Amino acid sequence: MIIDKLYDAVKEKGNVCLGLDTDLDYIPLEFKNQYADDGEAILQFNKKIIDATLDVVAVYKVQIAYYEALGINGLKAYSATLKYLKEKGAVTIADIKRGDIANTAKMYAKAHFEGDFEADFITLSPYMGMDTVEPFMSYLKSGNKGVFMLVRTSNGGSMDFEYLETAKGNKVYEEVGERFQNLGESVLGQCGYSAIGAVMGCTHVDEVAKMREKLNKTFFLIPGYGAQGGTAKDVALYLKNGNGGVVNSSRGILLAYKNKEHEGKSFYEAARLEAIKMRDEILKYSTAKEN
Amino acid sequence: MIIDKLYDAVKEKGNVCLGLDTDLDYIPLEFKNQYADDGEAILQFNKKIIDATLDVVAVYKVQIAYYEALGINGLKAYSATLKYLKEKGAVTIADIKRGDIANTAKMYAKAHFEGDFEADFITLSPYMGMDTVEPFMSYLKSGNKGVFMLVRTSNGGSMDFEYLETAKGNKVYEEVGERFQNLGESVLGQCGYSAIGAVMGCTHVDEVAKMREKLNKTFFLIPGYGAQGGTAKDVALYLKNGNGGVVNSSRGILLAYKNKEHEGKSFYEAARLEAIKMRDEILKYSTAKEN
Repeated sequence: MIIDKLYDAVKEKGNVCLGLDTDLDYIPLEFKNQYADDGEAILQFNKKIIDATLDVVAVYKVQIAYYEALGINGLKAYSATLKYLKEKGAVTIADIKRGDIANTAKMYAKAHFEGDFEADFITLSPYMGMDTVEPFMSYLKSGNKGVFMLVRTSNGGSMDFEYLETAKGNKVYEEVGERFQNLGESVLGQCGYSAIGAVMGCTHVDEVAKMREKLNKTFFLIPGYGAQGGTAKDVALYLKNGNGGVVNSSRGILLAYKNKEHEGKSFYEAARLEAIKMRDEILKYSTAKEN
Repeated sequence: MIIDKLYDAVKEKGNVCLGLDTDLDYIPLEFKNQYADDGEAILQFNKKIIDATLDVVAVYKVQIAYYEALGINGLKAYSATLKYLKEKGAVTIADIKRGDIANTAKMYAKAHFEGDFEADFITLSPYMGMDTVEPFMSYLKSGNKGVFMLVRTSNGGSMDFEYLETAKGNKVYEEVGERFQNLGESVLGQCGYSAIGAVMGCTHVDEVAKMREKLNKTFFLIPGYGAQGGTAKDVALYLKNGNGGVVNSSRGILLAYKNKEHEGKSFYEAARLEAIKMRDEILKYSTAKEN
């Protein structure tokens, strides 16, 4: 199952999820200017980053919004980026945060698990309820695909509705997490995690131990590292024996070439060094925790 | 403001929102076979439907999932459909249900309020909280754009999280609705409704009077009519003096040509007749309610 492939990738390469949220402004001018088309510039930038990080990154997350913003050309680059990652044997997450009723969800499944925009995992928003995930289940049961449900996100606004206390004394996000862990029982991998993962931001370390224990079969996609405030020490609390989660970094890696410490390096060499640094930082704390 | 344009469109043309959820399978074979490309077939089908209904439909809702499912070609048809609607002066809703953190939301705003995929309104999912809507506010304040937040959807799964009871004794969807009505105060149109509307399914008529009263400045986008069980009588409860809401129908109108009563008619003539029937049905009850 794809979740086992992700689990093995973490074992082999560490916990880094590289977010290809490639903003045009992130691309060094002299590189961008080689390409007449913006979509092409983004694609070539992505390829350089991918080539330089394949052996130190567990999974790539492609945020579709950055490509949609450039219209059809951007989406061609999105499609080509996913195809390139597939060719290279990398695990991919399409960060699309869809969530809709049955017929529409079926179309989203077709869009993002097949054809031009095919990815291994997609992110989904749970607001509309459990039946919005139903149309994806046959793909999950095939073993080739997985999803990450938004459970507790890393932004400040997560307090507004995710953190609402229910009459039963739970938070909304706890209820969401539990419902999807239960659904995941039907699509468990050999690694012990299910094909239904959870987005679990590392910006609130309160209650993390409780969540890690409750959602013990749920693989975490962890945003919020770096710029948003999450540290390697925080992140370690979201892992189990160093696995069971991947930690996303986008700007931190894509823009590493702007850091003083990487001066003189190409953008992709700097990205590689930054990914290694992040991997090792997380490893240090997640290993320390075990001992 | 665009919400005033929508309000006026309802006054002039009734409450029908035509959902262009155009599945390839909806298109009559003899029409589809004229086009080598599936995207082109969908676009030409949409144009015929649009031309036949412009004077009896308040607004068109284009569900992006159906186009994404066909990849790049599908999204070209999506883009061209929105451009055609704009040329014709129609009000448009892009049903995209996005919802993401600030930087990403900015990209979505650029994607769907500018460029290839520009629409007048977009739908947004509230799960991640209020700050996910912030990047759209400058567009709303310009007067040219609006959003519909998912509040209470029409599917069975809406019971799972939208209906969770909070410690304060509210439902989650009530909390969501109120928060966004309050935010909408800063973008009120002359018609009394704000540029922040709500998706409010007509499949649960319980509590509708309470919601209509509480969310008195919130324009409703109402799914669930027809196939999902909502009737014209139900829908009337969601309106205020016959305005303040539009009622979506997709398959009911697009597939009207398969109904016995429209035998011998073209698909677009049948669509027109069905839209008129729906408009008049709703009008009957919403007017009856006033008297």
